Amino acid sequence: MDEILKAVLKRIKPTQAERKQLEKVANEMVAKVNLACAKLGVPARGMLVGSAARDTWVRSERDIDIFILFPEKLSREELEQDGLRVAQAVAGRKGKKRFAEHPYITTRTGGFEVDLVPCYDVADPSKIKSAVDRSPHHQRYISKRLTPELTDEVLLLKKFMDGIGTYGAELKVRGFSGYLCELLVLHYRTFRGVVEAASKWMPGEVIDLAKSYRDVGEIKALFPGQPLVIIDPVDPNRNAAAAVSMQNFSTFVRACQDFVRKPSERFFFPAQAKVLSPQEVNRTLRQRGTALFCLAFDSPNVVEDILYPQLRKTEQALVMRLVRAGFEVLRSDVWANSKAAILIELSSEKLPKMQRRLGPPITVEAGDFVEKHLASRKRFSGPFVDQVGRLVFEVERRHVNAKQVFEVALEERAAFGKHVAESLAKGYKIYEGKQIVKLCVDKKFSRFLSEYLTRCLPWYR
Amino acid sequence: MDEILKAVLKRIKPTQAERKQLEKVANEMVAKVNLACAKLGVPARGMLVGSAARDTWVRSERDIDIFILFPEKLSREELEQDGLRVAQAVAGRKGKKRFAEHPYITTRTGGFEVDLVPCYDVADPSKIKSAVDRSPHHQRYISKRLTPELTDEVLLLKKFMDGIGTYGAELKVRGFSGYLCELLVLHYRTFRGVVEAASKWMPGEVIDLAKSYRDVGEIKALFPGQPLVIIDPVDPNRNAAAAVSMQNFSTFVRACQDFVRKPSERFFFPAQAKVLSPQEVNRTLRQRGTALFCLAFDSPNVVEDILYPQLRKTEQALVMRLVRAGFEVLRSDVWANSKAAILIELSSEKLPKMQRRLGPPITVEAGDFVEKHLASRKRFSGPFVDQVGRLVFEVERRHVNAKQVFEVALEERAAFGKHVAESLAKGYKIYEGKQIVKLCVDKKFSRFLSEYLTRCLPWYR
Repeated sequence: MDEILKAVLKRIKPTQAERKQLEKVANEMVAKVNLACAKLGVPARGMLVGSAARDTWVRSERDIDIFILFPEKLSREELEQDGLRVAQAVAGRKGKKRFAEHPYITTRTGGFEVDLVPCYDVADPSKIKSAVDRSPHHQRYISKRLTPELTDEVLLLKKFMDGIGTYGAELKVRGFSGYLCELLVLHYRTFRGVVEAASKWMPGEVIDLAKSYRDVGEIKALFPGQPLVIIDPVDPNRNAAAAVSMQNFSTFVRACQDFVRKPSERFFFPAQAKVLSPQEVNRTLRQRGTALFCLAFDSPNVVEDILYPQLRKTEQALVMRLVRAGFEVLRSDVWANSKAAILIELSSEKLPKMQRRLGPPITVEAGDFVEKHLASRKRFSGPFVDQVGRLVFEVERRHVNAKQVFEVALEERAAFGKHVAESLAKGYKIYEGKQIVKLCVDKKFSRFLSEYLTRCLPWYR
Repeated sequence: MDEILKAVLKRIKPTQAERKQLEKVANEMVAKVNLACAKLGVPARGMLVGSAARDTWVRSERDIDIFILFPEKLSREELEQDGLRVAQAVAGRKGKKRFAEHPYITTRTGGFEVDLVPCYDVADPSKIKSAVDRSPHHQRYISKRLTPELTDEVLLLKKFMDGIGTYGAELKVRGFSGYLCELLVLHYRTFRGVVEAASKWMPGEVIDLAKSYRDVGEIKALFPGQPLVIIDPVDPNRNAAAAVSMQNFSTFVRACQDFVRKPSERFFFPAQAKVLSPQEVNRTLRQRGTALFCLAFDSPNVVEDILYPQLRKTEQALVMRLVRAGFEVLRSDVWANSKAAILIELSSEKLPKMQRRLGPPITVEAGDFVEKHLASRKRFSGPFVDQVGRLVFEVERRHVNAKQVFEVALEERAAFGKHVAESLAKGYKIYEGKQIVKLCVDKKFSRFLSEYLTRCLPWYR
């Protein structure tokens, strides 16, 4: 394992020259922020945060995060206004406005993507006004503790997470943030220590680095149902791993098990998923023999952190409806760029006209159940008692085709994401089976669909 | 309720003339048995048992059971030989040999069907040599306790059981025996008492009339998993309700609930199930839109008490195979006269080519699971991790059509009933969908299929 890690580190660790280049750009930008504050008479200052500030950036990462820290007493409006004025002054006309909790500016300079993010300089991290206010505290906590040796271990863990597809806390990914990787290394001290420990993790795993709580029971009661709880040492009320989905948690644990058993560079540098040609997509769909539906519509104009949760909520609403209507949903997924797509795969697009309705167990009065179904003109048979003693009616099913269920659901749009529902109200198209091949003229959709059809953990590709 | 019961009793209680006629025939037959014993030098004697002996026969019943009691010391061979000689001497050439545990003779005389059954006259009922030896003890126990008033209550209960379809302990029915009806009346004293109590029964109900056990817990431990346990007062090691299936138990409880809520003669004299014409069968099958299969073959030459358990065992083996292959079984049933049929209804006769294989949870090593499926040429995708953290492979399904599964199962005949398997080895035919209509030339099958398609608790017809 050690040789593999050494080889990986060589490929991902920035050179002295690269580091100097980044430092130069970062320092210039911080200086520019401070200059702009002075010029504009704004009571704020620049601070470099994130991996660039901590030397935990992987060569392929080209991000610099600079926060503009304002005094706590300013109103939110003032912060947003002054913050944007400073950031725009620094970025010039290249700067693009983006929206998270606050608006911020992103720009490119010297080959780096620089985010200029206004925030409050809050003394007590448990009293922050917005999520971004926490970053300066994370910056101070980590930089104080991370030795150069630990930095290498963080690089390995981040690249490992990247390779297996679980890196990133954004809601599109729901994975492990860079900060989380740093905390894990601080806790387990080495990359090897992290993967060996994580290979034995169970859902509900708890890590409390700063010993903020008396015991694990207390923590589990506070953060129920989360696959991974890592108490933020900067704010013990926060689970730093709250973003990590069960799927990514499990993928990481499996990857660690597999890596410990048989270490390989493949975990860090996996093969790319193959993009299927339209002919191959067509053949694959035919081979699967399932009923694949693709709901396509225009993406609403919102950031990914808002869009993806809404897409997934809409996906779940459609899946639940289909399941309640009796269809077997095999798999589903969402995708977006300027267009959005919800993919739902059924074992069959058609169900028999007859549907069973089961009554209560014999210990429960069934008068209402029987009356209701006896009166129905849709009754085929019943009531009768099945082998385990339940009352059964066989009645006519309402929707025999999945497409009918889609159409009713898209008419009502109940439990859909708000902006997604608005976009769907304006129009959509349902593609079914090989019709979906048409959508592959969009190369990014084509890549998504190929990945869906040949889905495989990256290190097994 | 009382008026309804009075009216029902009037219709089912034998008249004085009918009773005299039965008594005359029964006494003659017992006398003939004793005469034959004397003539043939056989050390046995006749005894009238069953409902005819206890005045608990319903008008429509035309059965007389006469047992031929032999001393315990005789060998089984001697009993069978001498018993048949006596019975045949009584019945003459009209007599037909039948088989239960022992062979016995059945004959018709004076409008009655008379069974002449050799058995041992065992002093201690817990030491009987064969099930029939218990009948004389039941006879003595019941006739000693049943007053004329209680007799009427038994008649009502037996007719109620008959009307709702739960009467008869034979394995074709798996319902309530006449003896069980008598025990229930002895316990609850009136028909009303029985139905009121039974309307509140729960699965696992225990009745211990003779207080043979200390408590219910002791009984439940001895007879686990049975819906109804009624300790036989004549033999506390025996559950007199062992034959009662969960389905019949539940049907009886539901009937009691419904009758208590709204008494009606319909429970005693339900409408006949309508027999559908071939055209109606065809239309009904089309309306249901399901995939109905009928496996038809020659009935093996065994009595119903052997045939029906074997048919059901074979039915279950086929159902389990189909379920394991991924098919959804909606309902199934068996039927027999000289031909036998196993009916299995699926929601679809075809499944998609793609099949999901789920791996172990993340806390369990999955090396073997992954290796096996990675090596398979039938892999479509995987391994990947699903939303709840399980490993998934998508592979090619072996049997896409239900008919293939039937054919493989009928080739192997694993876990089939013995005689049924032998008959199937000689030949069978699988009818599917509207092909089944052809089988309706057999009027009895036609009635069975009609009842299946329009199945309904008799009192709701």
